[in-house]
Formats: sequence, structure tokens, C-alpha cells
Amino acid sequence: MTWVTDPVLAFIPSFSFPAPLLATAEAESGPLVLAGVLLSLVIVYLASKVGGEICARIDLPPVLGELVAGVVVGVSVMHLLIFPEGGEDGSHSLLMLFLQSTANLSPVAFPQVFQAQSEVISTLSEIGVIILLFEIGLESDLKELLRVGMQATLVAVVGVVTPFVLGTAGLMVIFDVPAVPAIFAGAALTATSIGITAKVLAEIQRLSSKEGQIIIGAAVMDDVLGIIILAVVASLARDGKVEVGNVIYLIVSAAVFLIGSIWVGRLISPLLVDLINNMKTRGQLLLTALMFAFTLSYIATVIQLEAILGAFAAGLILAETEKQRDLEEQVIPIADMLVPIFFVVVGARTDVGVLNPLVPENREGLIMAAFLIVVAFVGKVVTGLAVFGQPGINRLAIGVGMVPRGEVGLVFAAVGSSSGVLSKSLEAAIIVMVILTTFLAPPLLRVVFSRELSGTSEAPALQDARTEAVSLVPPSDLVELEQAEPEAK
Amino acid sequence: MTWVTDPVLAFIPSFSFPAPLLATAEAESGPLVLAGVLLSLVIVYLASKVGGEICARIDLPPVLGELVAGVVVGVSVMHLLIFPEGGEDGSHSLLMLFLQSTANLSPVAFPQVFQAQSEVISTLSEIGVIILLFEIGLESDLKELLRVGMQATLVAVVGVVTPFVLGTAGLMVIFDVPAVPAIFAGAALTATSIGITAKVLAEIQRLSSKEGQIIIGAAVMDDVLGIIILAVVASLARDGKVEVGNVIYLIVSAAVFLIGSIWVGRLISPLLVDLINNMKTRGQLLLTALMFAFTLSYIATVIQLEAILGAFAAGLILAETEKQRDLEEQVIPIADMLVPIFFVVVGARTDVGVLNPLVPENREGLIMAAFLIVVAFVGKVVTGLAVFGQPGINRLAIGVGMVPRGEVGLVFAAVGSSSGVLSKSLEAAIIVMVILTTFLAPPLLRVVFSRELSGTSEAPALQDARTEAVSLVPPSDLVELEQAEPEAK
Repeated sequence: MTWVTDPVLAFIPSFSFPAPLLATAEAESGPLVLAGVLLSLVIVYLASKVGGEICARIDLPPVLGELVAGVVVGVSVMHLLIFPEGGEDGSHSLLMLFLQSTANLSPVAFPQVFQAQSEVISTLSEIGVIILLFEIGLESDLKELLRVGMQATLVAVVGVVTPFVLGTAGLMVIFDVPAVPAIFAGAALTATSIGITAKVLAEIQRLSSKEGQIIIGAAVMDDVLGIIILAVVASLARDGKVEVGNVIYLIVSAAVFLIGSIWVGRLISPLLVDLINNMKTRGQLLLTALMFAFTLSYIATVIQLEAILGAFAAGLILAETEKQRDLEEQVIPIADMLVPIFFVVVGARTDVGVLNPLVPENREGLIMAAFLIVVAFVGKVVTGLAVFGQPGINRLAIGVGMVPRGEVGLVFAAVGSSSGVLSKSLEAAIIVMVILTTFLAPPLLRVVFSRELSGTSEAPALQDARTEAVSLVPPSDLVELEQAEPEAK
Repeated sequence: MTWVTDPVLAFIPSFSFPAPLLATAEAESGPLVLAGVLLSLVIVYLASKVGGEICARIDLPPVLGELVAGVVVGVSVMHLLIFPEGGEDGSHSLLMLFLQSTANLSPVAFPQVFQAQSEVISTLSEIGVIILLFEIGLESDLKELLRVGMQATLVAVVGVVTPFVLGTAGLMVIFDVPAVPAIFAGAALTATSIGITAKVLAEIQRLSSKEGQIIIGAAVMDDVLGIIILAVVASLARDGKVEVGNVIYLIVSAAVFLIGSIWVGRLISPLLVDLINNMKTRGQLLLTALMFAFTLSYIATVIQLEAILGAFAAGLILAETEKQRDLEEQVIPIADMLVPIFFVVVGARTDVGVLNPLVPENREGLIMAAFLIVVAFVGKVVTGLAVFGQPGINRLAIGVGMVPRGEVGLVFAAVGSSSGVLSKSLEAAIIVMVILTTFLAPPLLRVVFSRELSGTSEAPALQDARTEAVSLVPPSDLVELEQAEPEAK
């Protein structure tokens, strides 16, 4: 893959050319970047709606449809929406070619426009997941989270240790993979995609249930653990040894950030509310909240955590204020606009070509993948057993809720391939594991929850009726439905 | 300030890990671009709210505050938010330096991150004005617009011809400027910034008044005329002659697009509504509407018109459907989130240094500017007189409504400077003219409308009371207030 770097680097310096040249280059590429972004958004929205609607009709989670639709428009199938990863220069992007033929895009501006519009769409998708976690935080109950904190932590730790040990040991023993790649693959088994699980929980209105809150809490812990593990294995993969200092730094900063931001946030949130009440201009609540969320996201990013942790913390803090309800209503349209970008882009970036058994070099990977998938499910489902002192809790639901690896798992695979420690087949196996856990968990999560539902006073029929209703009322009314939930705060 | 970078850069590399270059470039710059964007958005929102709130308190239009706050954080004063124009490589961007010191950004990634985050913020600001015009379209009444179509067209034409002739002739006669630059400057006098006028009209709840609709209609016409004139003078500046073919193409495509999109749109809008009613997933109304708006914006862009024309047309069409009300409510938070980015960025990109009379080389420009400003105001205010068959209409308000040149005028200046046809002083004069018309028109517009108000049944006290109320209710209720307006549809 290294041969790719040259053209890329060769084109980076072209960013700083003399003034007049820049002016013209901008004058030319500026509107084309916008055109490319608009076109990408139309594709993203079309894909998310088509996929979501189909899944909604066959009673699968809409978010699964968005992921699959992303795969269809992405690098795996249609090449409509592809990204510069792997040195892709846009010459295979149908969107760019369409842009070229419709908007007379010149070859000079082509790479710049492709780079820029990919950058914009990627960033929008990242802002999308930030808004999603902010919304999840707003709908979560900090007190409840703290109450289930111990269970969540235990679930997270069990859900990290079990798959890591089973995966690493299994690969070394059964497939005699060398230690470092085995550890790397084992690490890739540990991460949970909080975004996907949270979205499904929201879709089936179980976010504020005790199970939901334990899953969210555990997923957040898991995210932090995942970042630390990634740092460890990355340095291990890079130079065979672990940079202890870096690891300690990550652990401390994560702890300080999560505790500190919520502690400080609770102190200043009343001031924010006063501020908002004294503002006279439009959007005072929303923009103040976004400033708060983006600031925490920024801090989380620069201390090498993930932006979504900051957004989630901000949501949690604001959920405790009198503004929670209004804010929740105003965030809904923004989430509707930005969150689908995240899921479609995750799908679009996933190359499912490795799933094709007809390609001989995929086979070894698929066999290892089969093993990893078993470990991935078992290793997370057992976490439900770790929950203590919660009589009658749906342990299976908690376990299944931790299964999807999603974008986090893909990051492991990407880092692994770039550091060159993973064999092609092992990398493929990890990707397959990520794809299947991500795509199978949402429907499973629905099943295990609805099983429980039919047991309770709430009959599936009613559940369906509500889902039906949800689809017909304007999103701004969804909140009332959520509120109407017995277990809602 | 440049010396600052060196020590910082010298100390950075200790962080950046050796690994395949592409991997580092992406793995490193990815989260940093996000961090830069988040930080930029916090600055933008902070600026827009501080500026807006101050103006709201001294009874000036909040949008003026957003523009001024943009100037403060932008290239003129604080250098927090600056863009790669004029070959700026980011080494003067306080934001980038802050990013460098907080998020250990390496020198390799620096230009790429600066370029990428500027690209993202510019695109977000363009999407912001697209959403603004979509919202304006939603709040406009197509039938009313068609009813005042003749007046609007007349206003637009008068408002283009008068300042063009006065400006060009005056510069040639009084300042004996050569023909081509004089024509260029004259052309820069013709454009009206629909965004700024529309925002002010919305702020003072006069969007759906007859005057408001004439101004909007005329501003749209004016926008189209402006694009055509820019094409003419640009080709004139480039090679001394006019590409007639290109001009005809623009005129025809503009006419076909505006008429065609509305005609076709009205045919398909019932299908869209049926589609929306049959969708079961969250955000069905909003995403379908955005797909429609972005598609028209894309078409407008690729036929070399402006994206905002497409968004406005889409809003107009959807305003006629049963969904208008719900959609308007859902667009408000999105507008609150994205529109301020546009106004702050417009301010941030404006270099008001040319206003400083202490700099000798500014003086000649300032004298010409004084002349251009007079022409700019007179040339547009007279357009009110062109309105016929509307007894008792506020002609002054219509004239003043056409005054702000805003971003459109800046585009002329930018093209002029890049094509090198304008002398430094004349370019400065145009920029000064744009700044003052843009910054003075909003308060003037309020005055001329409120004069009228105090005459009508609606006492200023009530007006103030409502403005007060508007500030206290959540934005989603603003719509009701708008609806409650006597002249609202």
C-alpha cells in the first residue's frame, strides 16, 4: 500500500500555492466541492431512507438498513460514495465521475475536490455520531447510570477480558498465529460500538430501561477501555513493546475527563440555564447546548479520547436541567439530518468483498472469521451473567447489547493493516467478524427485548402499534411517546 | 507572529510515531480535522450569540451582530477564524496554533488540517445559507410572489441598471478610471445580498408582508442578474471581450431553471407528500425535503447558477403542500445550527483593514468608496419608485431592502482582485462599499419598517412586546407567532 503514499504526499504541498493561483483554484473548486457534498448528502439520505424503510417493513431495525444501504452505495458495490482510504484518488468514485460530467470539473481540480468533499462528508458523519451520543446522553439518566455504575463497569470488564483471552488464546492454539497478531486480533474483539447499540435501543424505546442504561454505561466504559487497548496493541505492533507511560496517561486522562467533566458540568449547568433564560435571540438554547457539547467533545479529542465521550457527557449533564425537554425536541431534527450520515458512511467504508468465499484467498480468513465470530458473540453474551443484585433483569439482552463491534472494530482492523502486523487473512477475518456482529446484533437485540416485552403487561401488538404511530407523527412528537414510556424518567 | 510556529513545530515531532506515511497522515489528521472543526464551531456560535445578543439589546438586528462578531474573530482583528484565501497557510490562524499546542498537531499534517477544516467550515457556511434560503422559501408564498412578480422584476432591473450606470459613468468621469475597471466596479454595485435582507425581514416579522415578498422576489431576480453580470465582466476582465455564448447560456439556463423547477416541482410535490405519509422511519419528512432541496441546489450549482436559488425554489414548492407547517418547525433548529455559521464566516472573511484612514494607501480608496457608497444607496433606494399599482406600499422599505451587497459584492471584489483588473484602491473602495451597505442596511431597514408600523394599528410597544416574547419562547413556537401575523399566509 505504501506505493500509494507518493501521489498523496505529492498533492498535499499543492495546498500552499501562491495567492493568485490559489484564488483561481478556489474560485474553480469551491462551488464544485459544495456540489459534491450536496450530491453525497442526497445519496446518503436516499440510501438511509430506502434501507431504513425496507428494514422497518420486514421488522428489522432501521439502522441496520442504513448500514446495509451504505454498503450498497459504498466501496463494496456501487462505488457511489467512496473515501480516499487505501490511496483511492477518486477516479473510481461514480459520484466524482458524475460531477465531472455534469459540472465540468477539470482534471486539475479533480483530486482537490475529491479530497475536500470526502473530508467534509467524513467530518459531517463524525458530527453525526457526536449529535447521536449527545442525544443519547440527553435521554439517559445520570443518577440511574451512577446507580448501575458498578454493574456497567463489571459488564464492560468481563466483556473486554473474555473475548480478548478466548480470541488470543484460540488463534495461537488452534491456528498457531504468532503472539503479536493474535493479541491484536483479540484486542479487536473487545470493542463495543456504542452508537449502533444505542440507536437500536432508542428505536425500540428501551434506552431508559434498566437494561438500556446498563448497556449504555458499559458501552461507554468499553469505549474507554477500547481506546486504551488500541494504544497498547498499536505500540506493541509498532515496536514489539508497550509504552507504559502512554497507557498510564490514557487511563488517567480518561478517568479525570469522565469524572471531571460531569462534576464540573453539574456545577456550571445552572449558570448555563440562567444564561439561556437571559438571551433574547433565536436559537439561544440549542446553540448554548451545542457549544457546551462541542467544547467537551474537543477536550475529549485532544486528550486522545473520543469526541463522542464528550458529547455523551454533555448530554448527561444537560439532561438534569429544566431545559432537557425543550432541548431534546430541538435536537431531534438535527439528529435526523446528521446521524444517518454516520451510519451510511460506516457502511460505505466497509468492504464486504472479504466475505466472498469464491475468492480463494478469502477462505483461510473466513475459517478464522467463523472462530472469531463465535468468540465475539460468546465473549459478550456472557457479560449478562456478570450483572449482580438486579433480580429479573434481562441478562441476555445486556449480553447481546454489547455484541456489535461496528466502527470501533473497523478502526482496529485499519490500524492493524496500516501497521502491517496482521496477515491479509487475519485482517479479513477481523473485518468479517466486525461486519457480522454489527449486522446481526440489532435484529437479535430486538428479539431478546421483545421476548421480554411479550412477558410484561406491554403486548407486542401494542409495541407494533406504537412503532406504527411513531412513524406517522412528526419526530417532534416522538419525545412525548418516549416520555409516555413506563420506564421513562 | 510566524516565529511562534518554529519552537512549537520543533517540539512536536517527539509525538508523531513512525509508521507508513499514509497511515499517519490520515490517522493523525483525521481526529485533528474534527477537533479543528469543533473548535471553529464553538468560536462561531460564541461570536454569533455575543454579537446577536448585544445587537438585540441596543435594538439592532441580531444578524448585524453576527456579521460584526465575525469580523472580530476573523482576519481583520483576532485571527481566530481565517481561511486559505490570499495564500494564507494557517500559520497566522490562532485556532490552528491553539490546535497545535493543545492537540500536538505535527508540521507534516498542519497544512492539510488547516486546509481541511477551512474547507469543512466554508462548506457548512454554504449549507447554512442554503438552509436559510430554503427556510425563506418555506415562509414565502409562491402565489404572492407571482402576483408581485412584475413589480419585483421591475425593482430588480431598476436596481441593477441605476447603480451600474451611475457607478461606471461616475468613476470614469470624476475619477477618470479606465473603462474596464470602471465597468467592473459598476457591476459590483448591482448585486443584492438576498441572505442578509431576508434574515432581517424574518427578524422583524415582515417576510410575508407585500413589501417583504417584493423585496425577496426582486432579490432573487437580482441574484440571477448579478450572476450574469459577473460572467460578463469576468470575461471582459479576462480577455477584454464578452463571451456572448456564455451570457446567453446563463440567461436561458437561469430562466429555464427557475420556471422549470417550480413547474416540475409543483407536479411532483403531491407525490413527495404521499411518499412521506407512507414512510415509517424517523425523520421521513425532513430528509425527503432536504433531498429535494439539495437536489435542486445541486442542479443550480452545476448550471453555474447559485445553490441558494435551488434551495429557495424547493422551499417555495414545499410551502404549498400540507407539510409546510411541520417542515417549517423542523427546519428551525437546523437553521439555528447552520445559518449563524454563514453570517459569522462572511464577517470573518471580510478584511476591514481597508477602512483605516491612517494608512495612506487607503485614502484614495476611501474617497472613491465614499462615492460608491452614495451610488450604492441611491441606486437601490430609487427602486422603490419603480413599484406600480400598489397604493400605500412602503416604497422606501423596498428600496432600502435592496441595499445590502453582502457576500455577493465580496465575490465581485474577489474575482476582480484575482483577475488583476482592479487597482488596489478601487478594490478597497468596492470592499468598503460592500461593508458599509451590508452593515448599515439592516438597522435602516428596521427603521423604515417600524416607522410604517407605528402608523398602522400595530403599535411599536406591541412590536417590542412580541420581540420580547419571541426571545423567551422556544424557537419551535416562533412559527405560531409568524402565523399569528395579520399579513401571514
